Amino acid sequence: MCRVKKTRTRNRGLGDVTTRHYINSGWLQKGRDIMNTQELAKAFTDMCAKGEFDAAGNEFWSDDIVSREPMTGDMAVLKGRRAVEGKGEWWYANHEVHNVKVEGPYVHGDQFVVRFKMEVTPKGKQRMDLDEVGLYTVQNGKIVEERFFMGGPQS
Amino acid sequence: MCRVKKTRTRNRGLGDVTTRHYINSGWLQKGRDIMNTQELAKAFTDMCAKGEFDAAGNEFWSDDIVSREPMTGDMAVLKGRRAVEGKGEWWYANHEVHNVKVEGPYVHGDQFVVRFKMEVTPKGKQRMDLDEVGLYTVQNGKIVEERFFMGGPQS
Repeated sequence: MCRVKKTRTRNRGLGDVTTRHYINSGWLQKGRDIMNTQELAKAFTDMCAKGEFDAAGNEFWSDDIVSREPMTGDMAVLKGRRAVEGKGEWWYANHEVHNVKVEGPYVHGDQFVVRFKMEVTPKGKQRMDLDEVGLYTVQNGKIVEERFFMGGPQS
Repeated sequence: MCRVKKTRTRNRGLGDVTTRHYINSGWLQKGRDIMNTQELAKAFTDMCAKGEFDAAGNEFWSDDIVSREPMTGDMAVLKGRRAVEGKGEWWYANHEVHNVKVEGPYVHGDQFVVRFKMEVTPKGKQRMDLDEVGLYTVQNGKIVEERFFMGGPQS
């Protein structure tokens, strides 16, 4: 798995407030380096762009991650790393992914957005285009929530 | 200004939870129709795609809208319609907008995302590309928060 460089350098620009929050939170005083949101967002998005979705999750999800899909039913809200990994396993078992285009990240404070366009064939169904964005919330250098937004026909 | 059709029809799919919330909230019992998030998001994005940004704001901003930019300084957080309109006036006075490409909306519950790619020339500076997304939060058929996320060089 690709490991990403961690640094004590303060972010000079976007995510500045978040970085200050980390510095004030006491984590650095415990001798632990934490990536700021801009760095984490870039590293996470780079891994997704290479198709390394599982590795990106392993690297950046909090153990307490909450995953929210724009639907009702069992998978609408999943809590905890094991549950979210289970959703990924279900997805790959039930969809053939032909290609993925990743754009971003777009950053604001402790949140960032990534856009995913993909062509998939759900098991037993027709090949289709998916266009969605993920909104990720970061705390202490880990993603604590991912929230997916579904696109429809373009305006 | 383009007026959009309001309907009592329940949304069958994305935004379903939001619609139920409206129905249960008592607003409809007061004889008032409220667009659900999916309908509002589509109408708002269509107006933006036509370049009707001011009209979209007039139509859909709550009087108490909060606008958040990914920066520090005076314009990082603006509260209230008048303050947010003032930001728009400042923007147009200080940027020549050559073209805008709008993609979306992407919807989840009471929130939606729109992507804006534009070519602009800030006053006295070089022509440049901007790539950002807006995350909009809807309550009672109005946008109560807009939060902008800034893109950097693509991964």
